[in-house]
Amino acid sequence: MGEFELIERFFTRAPRRSPLGVGDDCALLQPRPGMQLAVSSDMLVEGRHFLSTADPRRLGHKALAVNLSDLAACGAEPLAFTLALALPGADEAWLGAFAEGLLALADAHGCELVGGDTTRGPLCIGITVFGEVPAGGALLRSGARPGDDLWVSGTLGDARLALEAFRGTVSLPQPVFEAARLRMEQPSPRVALGMALRGIANAAIDISDGLLGDLGHVLRRSAVGATVDADAAAALLGARALGWPAPPEAMRDLVLAGGDDYELAFAAPPDARAAVEAAGRTTGTPVTRIGRIDAEAGLRIVDAQGVPLGRDWQGFDHFR
Amino acid sequence: MGEFELIERFFTRAPRRSPLGVGDDCALLQPRPGMQLAVSSDMLVEGRHFLSTADPRRLGHKALAVNLSDLAACGAEPLAFTLALALPGADEAWLGAFAEGLLALADAHGCELVGGDTTRGPLCIGITVFGEVPAGGALLRSGARPGDDLWVSGTLGDARLALEAFRGTVSLPQPVFEAARLRMEQPSPRVALGMALRGIANAAIDISDGLLGDLGHVLRRSAVGATVDADAAAALLGARALGWPAPPEAMRDLVLAGGDDYELAFAAPPDARAAVEAAGRTTGTPVTRIGRIDAEAGLRIVDAQGVPLGRDWQGFDHFR
Repeated sequence: MGEFELIERFFTRAPRRSPLGVGDDCALLQPRPGMQLAVSSDMLVEGRHFLSTADPRRLGHKALAVNLSDLAACGAEPLAFTLALALPGADEAWLGAFAEGLLALADAHGCELVGGDTTRGPLCIGITVFGEVPAGGALLRSGARPGDDLWVSGTLGDARLALEAFRGTVSLPQPVFEAARLRMEQPSPRVALGMALRGIANAAIDISDGLLGDLGHVLRRSAVGATVDADAAAALLGARALGWPAPPEAMRDLVLAGGDDYELAFAAPPDARAAVEAAGRTTGTPVTRIGRIDAEAGLRIVDAQGVPLGRDWQGFDHFR
Repeated sequence: MGEFELIERFFTRAPRRSPLGVGDDCALLQPRPGMQLAVSSDMLVEGRHFLSTADPRRLGHKALAVNLSDLAACGAEPLAFTLALALPGADEAWLGAFAEGLLALADAHGCELVGGDTTRGPLCIGITVFGEVPAGGALLRSGARPGDDLWVSGTLGDARLALEAFRGTVSLPQPVFEAARLRMEQPSPRVALGMALRGIANAAIDISDGLLGDLGHVLRRSAVGATVDADAAAALLGARALGWPAPPEAMRDLVLAGGDDYELAFAAPPDARAAVEAAGRTTGTPVTRIGRIDAEAGLRIVDAQGVPLGRDWQGFDHFR
């Protein structure tokens, strides 16, 4: 199957919102008047971001999900994306399943595939996603203020727990493993919550490299510090709700520094608590307060009694 | 060197035109009122699109050039780009040179780096480029009309000639090799010409996979045919002007199906000849008429006397 036939067969659909989609030198996008275009690019490499045995349908889902999660962190509404794909070969069954997972999530978010590139090479997936946000209304990392509550969405740590199970460092009951594996392989980008938090949250980020590591970016760009209740956070491990008797120390590690969560961490003033909770309710997304933003620089991790924990956690860094 | 330090050191500069650049979950772009955003993504893989010994400065240039060439083919003005980079390791000398080549070309076109992603993996460069074009004013592949002249910009075939020299299938005098190698490693995207052809050309495409292969996309999308003067085209081999005594058959092959040229092929009505030539002059870009668009489907390759050539040329296809 040639490159053009491959694109035609699996990745070409008529554009709906965009003036021009797949098949020309460029795609054309037209943000509505008064809107800015939010743009994010991510690259997923086999062996680094996913296992060679990954189910292609779930992989298609995840490749787009991690990008939609960046739009969510800005409060942007998904619009379109491009796909650049390096493939070891043109395996039709694999491509069909990959496209199915990818386009199902795209359709669920009204995000259309408008262009891209395919080539032969080691399996590598590059997606650039576009969303719309009212000019000046994007949630940024730089807006957190002292006194803000610190919130996170959903559950944390389960994707890393699944990875550790795959690595053999932990043994899980089957239902716990299956649930954690779904979190790793099919994360749900918090797009609706991000949009609902516009005008409410002062700052937001998506948790892809671990809660504390990503929170560090917010603190640096906002020139503030934070205090995080490690026990309130640790309670967010989904596996715990399934009855997995996790050691407390392991729970803290997974939740604070696990990575691959694709939840939102955000800061909002205390008088916006009801509004944050309403945003969570209307979008069907659990939201939990786990700390506060401080004027004093640095990150303080405390237990439920407010006692500082002596340990240091570091976000996962692909080049460390 | 960590991922974040790497980005900070080599790829972060203050945004100039974009509301938000590198360092948040998304970059923000704001096309001017009445403008559409042209978007194109390309992925370059080591061993496929460039040799492992490629000079990183030239590689940085080329990675962006092939994307700018897509904007040129739409008549779009470059605005910004994102860079997704998989690297086997964080080699500072290599990255510094790569960034230098990349950002020098970006600066020459007023195209700013607004975001991206770095990860460890087999060397793979994914760029998504953004340009502005007046709504409805983009040059498309679908606008060619019977009776249009068929034009190409610049010279053709030399990049492939250099590749063949690297492969050892042809031996070139040193000055010819050096010139051809520059065409392969540092193509000049025809951005100014593309913009100047807005409102003049009916259709355009960039020649990345070989003249005939790419022309085929225009014919298919415009539902027309074409007649190409193979000898007028063959005269565009830059190496010929340097005195390389190329066999006529080899010249035709290189020019018609060589690939990697990043010139524009475009169709314009005969009464626009003076305007096309003026566009070439004002932008310092040679433009040459090499054929015409026909109502009859199919591609007819003829010699200087109009006699059909019996051979078939196929554009380079990464999956053939």
